[in-house]
Amino acid sequence: MQQFNIGKPDDEIRSCLQEKIDSLTKPKGSLGVLEDLAMQIGWVQQSLNPRLTNPCHIVFAGDHGIAAEGVSLSPQEVTYQMILNFQAGGAGINFLARQHGFDLKVVDAGVNFDFKEGDPVLNRKIRKSTRNYLHEAAMTREEMELAIQYGAGCVQTCYDEGCNVIGFGEMGITNTSSSSLWMACLAGIPLDRCTGAGCDHTGNIVSHKYKVLKQAMENYRGDASVEDFMRYFGGYEMVMAVGAMLKAAELKMMVLVDGFIMTNCMLAASKLNENVLHYSIFGHQGDEAGHKLALDYLKAKPLLHLGLRLGEGTGALCAYPVVDSAVRMINEMNSFKEIKVTKYF
Amino acid sequence: MQQFNIGKPDDEIRSCLQEKIDSLTKPKGSLGVLEDLAMQIGWVQQSLNPRLTNPCHIVFAGDHGIAAEGVSLSPQEVTYQMILNFQAGGAGINFLARQHGFDLKVVDAGVNFDFKEGDPVLNRKIRKSTRNYLHEAAMTREEMELAIQYGAGCVQTCYDEGCNVIGFGEMGITNTSSSSLWMACLAGIPLDRCTGAGCDHTGNIVSHKYKVLKQAMENYRGDASVEDFMRYFGGYEMVMAVGAMLKAAELKMMVLVDGFIMTNCMLAASKLNENVLHYSIFGHQGDEAGHKLALDYLKAKPLLHLGLRLGEGTGALCAYPVVDSAVRMINEMNSFKEIKVTKYF
Repeated sequence: MQQFNIGKPDDEIRSCLQEKIDSLTKPKGSLGVLEDLAMQIGWVQQSLNPRLTNPCHIVFAGDHGIAAEGVSLSPQEVTYQMILNFQAGGAGINFLARQHGFDLKVVDAGVNFDFKEGDPVLNRKIRKSTRNYLHEAAMTREEMELAIQYGAGCVQTCYDEGCNVIGFGEMGITNTSSSSLWMACLAGIPLDRCTGAGCDHTGNIVSHKYKVLKQAMENYRGDASVEDFMRYFGGYEMVMAVGAMLKAAELKMMVLVDGFIMTNCMLAASKLNENVLHYSIFGHQGDEAGHKLALDYLKAKPLLHLGLRLGEGTGALCAYPVVDSAVRMINEMNSFKEIKVTKYF
Repeated sequence: MQQFNIGKPDDEIRSCLQEKIDSLTKPKGSLGVLEDLAMQIGWVQQSLNPRLTNPCHIVFAGDHGIAAEGVSLSPQEVTYQMILNFQAGGAGINFLARQHGFDLKVVDAGVNFDFKEGDPVLNRKIRKSTRNYLHEAAMTREEMELAIQYGAGCVQTCYDEGCNVIGFGEMGITNTSSSSLWMACLAGIPLDRCTGAGCDHTGNIVSHKYKVLKQAMENYRGDASVEDFMRYFGGYEMVMAVGAMLKAAELKMMVLVDGFIMTNCMLAASKLNENVLHYSIFGHQGDEAGHKLALDYLKAKPLLHLGLRLGEGTGALCAYPVVDSAVRMINEMNSFKEIKVTKYF
């Protein structure tokens, strides 16, 4: 499988960054999370004047064979319909991308639909839907490796366009199921604590969903490696996101992590290369059962808690202004040296 | 005292708003807090297409006689120094105002300093610093009434300039002390639970501060009315903010409430006219002891938790993009009628 060379940023700059942040005209530490983010981004970029340039957001989309088992109340057709909605500019992620100045790219990783030539969706289709992991591996080893490569390639394109901060989101009916299985297998958290209602606000689906996923785990006969869990229970859109995250970190880009599904993609990415976490900013903690556990496992402190459960990357983009504020803070605020203010507490 | 005619918005539109929000291409409720905000703003504006126009932010500044008792580690001179910093564009509130497109106005409500003619600070100085409320009322009844009028007048100007969403912040060394006293007196919460460290991150000051404030409460001999507590323990900048909040609500503007001090100004405003709360959006919950209690008392759910404790209105402005997102959501998202997407859960 494609390897990524992800370094840990040099720690030497941290004391200079801290000194600069503490020299700004505010009581020490009084800008809270903005100060933490300024430190992280300055550290990653090895700069006392970090910058965010050409933000991009990629939505990876794919369908899942497990949909046949009725683990979601939403029909599979919603996946392709929502992609057409992204293209029309009328979905949740669209207004957020416009609001925050993100270039939005939609990638067909494995949607069960034939898009038309000329549709503004990037065709990286591995296959029309994964296989049903209740009975067999969702994808082959080759398919997984291709998905990783495709994800990395999408990020390289953004990087070549001048982007150094990137969000990832997903569209794929039933992909909370795959995420719960990845989380249970990769973090060793009991499956029942990883399984939630997904986008079904009624909560009626959970017990059936859990039963199916539990059976799928029992049926699993693999080598229990990270890669094997990923391919067995994964979605193409999720594996592509993992490749994208790893590539972004290799390119020293800041990665904006969205909700439950993307958090579990980051979990998988971190199992392949733990340095990816240095480049990660977790945007949002939702109410989906298990999301908090996955974040805690990664020692991640999400920026926002807005009760979102839409996916698409909405939680990542909603958090972007806070990230932008952090960078503006360290670049735009006066220091106590520059202006006559008594250093206050 | 100046009276404000603040109505409760007509509830009839709420079902139409809910229907519109539920018709957008997303699982019902899946945009969480954005949906709540869209409902609130649509209800206040009595419109299915609410708009936010010409956002303004006013920082009210003033000094406090209680500073003589050493309740803050920061010296009083910081108040005027920071105003000069606001004017230079180098403070925390400046980069946030620029980032989010706010017109920033700084009002001298009672700073212990003579600003120069031509300084871009609005002169509404009531007096150079309040009196020391350990021994006497911080301000006279007439001064309080003038501050209310001035605050209202500042908001009227913003309104006349086309603004319908307004943030308020403050600058005034020791004004967490006044806020703690307002909170204890107006909400009946024990003073020790209302008293925190202010901008002193070391926490060393709290026990002395509490002792002084407790003595001030014991010395109080007034009629225990809202107005009397306000004038006795208030700051000019705080009373001005109360007048500003009430006027903004009268003009059906959305009010962005900042941290501990502004929350207690909203508490006071709500005691004068509880309808003001319909127009309020609480931006941020900080770590200052008592802030959560004050918010809970007002049944307020702040949008962000970023560990800010700077004041100036930074928490209000950091939250603005979320408010903007809510309005964009209801105006820009496609409905299930407009685009062929199966209504999903």
